[in-house]
Amino acid sequence: MITDLDQIFSVSAQGMKRSMIRELLKLSQKPGIISFGGGFPAPDSFPIEEIKEITNEILTEEGAQALQYGATEGDNDLRELMVKRYQEQGIKVDMENLVILTSSQQGLDLVPKIFINPGDKIICGLPSYLGGLSAFSNYGAKLVGVELDEKGMSAEKLEAALEAMKQKGEKPKFIYVIPDFQNPAGITMPKDRRLEILALAKKYDVLILEDSPYRELRFTGTPQPMLYDLDSSGHVMTLGTFSKIFAPSFRIGWILAHPDIIDKIVKAKQATDLCTSPLVQKIAFRYINKGYFDVNLKKIIESYRVKREVMLNSLKEFMPAGVTWTEPEGGLFLFVTLPEYIDAEELFKVAIEQNVAFVPGTAFYCDGGGKNTMRINFSYITQEQTKEGIKRLGNAIKLMIK
Amino acid sequence: MITDLDQIFSVSAQGMKRSMIRELLKLSQKPGIISFGGGFPAPDSFPIEEIKEITNEILTEEGAQALQYGATEGDNDLRELMVKRYQEQGIKVDMENLVILTSSQQGLDLVPKIFINPGDKIICGLPSYLGGLSAFSNYGAKLVGVELDEKGMSAEKLEAALEAMKQKGEKPKFIYVIPDFQNPAGITMPKDRRLEILALAKKYDVLILEDSPYRELRFTGTPQPMLYDLDSSGHVMTLGTFSKIFAPSFRIGWILAHPDIIDKIVKAKQATDLCTSPLVQKIAFRYINKGYFDVNLKKIIESYRVKREVMLNSLKEFMPAGVTWTEPEGGLFLFVTLPEYIDAEELFKVAIEQNVAFVPGTAFYCDGGGKNTMRINFSYITQEQTKEGIKRLGNAIKLMIK
Repeated sequence: MITDLDQIFSVSAQGMKRSMIRELLKLSQKPGIISFGGGFPAPDSFPIEEIKEITNEILTEEGAQALQYGATEGDNDLRELMVKRYQEQGIKVDMENLVILTSSQQGLDLVPKIFINPGDKIICGLPSYLGGLSAFSNYGAKLVGVELDEKGMSAEKLEAALEAMKQKGEKPKFIYVIPDFQNPAGITMPKDRRLEILALAKKYDVLILEDSPYRELRFTGTPQPMLYDLDSSGHVMTLGTFSKIFAPSFRIGWILAHPDIIDKIVKAKQATDLCTSPLVQKIAFRYINKGYFDVNLKKIIESYRVKREVMLNSLKEFMPAGVTWTEPEGGLFLFVTLPEYIDAEELFKVAIEQNVAFVPGTAFYCDGGGKNTMRINFSYITQEQTKEGIKRLGNAIKLMIK
Repeated sequence: MITDLDQIFSVSAQGMKRSMIRELLKLSQKPGIISFGGGFPAPDSFPIEEIKEITNEILTEEGAQALQYGATEGDNDLRELMVKRYQEQGIKVDMENLVILTSSQQGLDLVPKIFINPGDKIICGLPSYLGGLSAFSNYGAKLVGVELDEKGMSAEKLEAALEAMKQKGEKPKFIYVIPDFQNPAGITMPKDRRLEILALAKKYDVLILEDSPYRELRFTGTPQPMLYDLDSSGHVMTLGTFSKIFAPSFRIGWILAHPDIIDKIVKAKQATDLCTSPLVQKIAFRYINKGYFDVNLKKIIESYRVKREVMLNSLKEFMPAGVTWTEPEGGLFLFVTLPEYIDAEELFKVAIEQNVAFVPGTAFYCDGGGKNTMRINFSYITQEQTKEGIKRLGNAIKLMIK
């Protein structure tokens, strides 16, 4: 082998860790385990028959184009349809604002690629989606955590962080927020908080990266406007994905942003994967265009709404005193806070013995905090598994309660 | 808009250019143009009926798994099958050496991601595949060009470059080579040259990135061993792809490397797109496993062999004296050298007026050289278009010949 391989990896690669979530998912694949770990959609949410029908149509009618290379910007029909749907909701998006990505995770990679020099700062919530934090760190970004309150990222603490940086002559490259059913916290930012965050972004002249993979999955409460839509100054970039509302396997996401930013994203994407699969984009286009998307989305929402109810009821039934949790209005996750003396990573080991798994919350804290928290997914498993799993988890926690 | 957006882009983003090839492809979409520009497979090479059959089977038999998230490393069945096929050829590849990528272009992005700190050096051929050069530059790599001779990258000049760097206490992170039917030069490295390059890599303790997207597309001559197979010291990483031998739309590539490198690649890929589409990987698995791949590959090779003949005959017929070209034993491209006083970018404008397009060779030279060269693709267009297009190109050149 090459001498000193470890030394020739890039500085950021030397710090790369495998995602704790994905490693835990492997552990939790042992038979009999009920896992609240992943962020997987329910397998019965996939419209298999519709996809079969559509794929046959595409291969029959436009097979050669569907199997060829495509434009880096994405399939034109799909982009036009998505722009039209945004416009119908009154959201100001034009073709020049939207490009298709190979998953919204690709957006979490391309945005730092075009903005981050090693050492640059990014502000993110405490907690925030691990896949975002990893992608940013891989470009050598320094993550500055800002606590959430019950309305999401604290505007007061954000201003304090921005002001402290300003005093040092620094400015973060962007603020990373997940305003809808936040992963992992399950908190939704109300409009007033969105406006405060946006006002701060403008005041300190900083971009916002709005990551909104679950936006369409609202079970209760009132939809809040996208930060992208509240802004008219080009300060907001927004990521979306079909992974939770269609099928993750298609790996289709998108980004909305100012055309000058879109231009750089396209250049960066060209050197990353040339284009997103035209076949899967054509499938998504026909799936929406035929009306299947809207019909099926309602079914997914109803199914997850029930699963969430079962989850909340099970928590009430089986969690010992001193354990609290968020009650998300949508999305896939809720966040559980344990008594402070319980370390969720220690609990994880006990839980695995009880045949139940989750993600320790500390994975989502860029400052190493959140040791007594855990993320619980309610979309993937059945209602019966939810009850049984939460019962097991309650038992595991009781073993650790003093 | 945010103030000074141009200033807050990362240093490498400020240098990002859209691929000249992809921009030229847009120009060459004007009606009536015959384009030798892209690197597209022939549309009639796609096995549409087989894909339809297989996709139906997968959605019927394992739809829910095919539409879900998958492992970052790739589909296990596909990986095992590919490993087995390498082993049957006597090539030492194990599961720990191979992961699936979302196109081999993703490999050209992930390899610098794990090795390059801004300012690090990479050695590449003069000329080399533009998509590789762009991906490397996007991580702030400095590209050091080494000329090719009729056997590919010159071992003598490579040693001179390595030695010159050594004298300055420097070492490149890797040497980028495209040994089979080089893009754009159409040159294949014979075994003796491969051994020389490998010996230099070991002598100077430098990794090699072997990019081999066309390896299976050999029309004539004898297959040469992969650098990966000649090496037993872990110095070689090799990229492969199904884009030219199955369908680009599936965006499936792979990398072979030492397990310690594979481990970093997997970590880097997790934060880039989580996983490659399980559905498309399952399609590829069944396509190979059912024997369709081997049967269809023979047809593609035969079709391109004929197209190459037509291309070489047309060049002989229509090129004026003073123009020379390579005669590739496989792949998709050949490389044309014009009289030194003709600038291929100037010729491009004249050619577009004659309704024919190509890629000026200078795009492939990291030192800005190659001004009197051009890359010609022969896989995409029909035999009739080849004859007519080369006739037009000959006419365009004649207009510029002094």
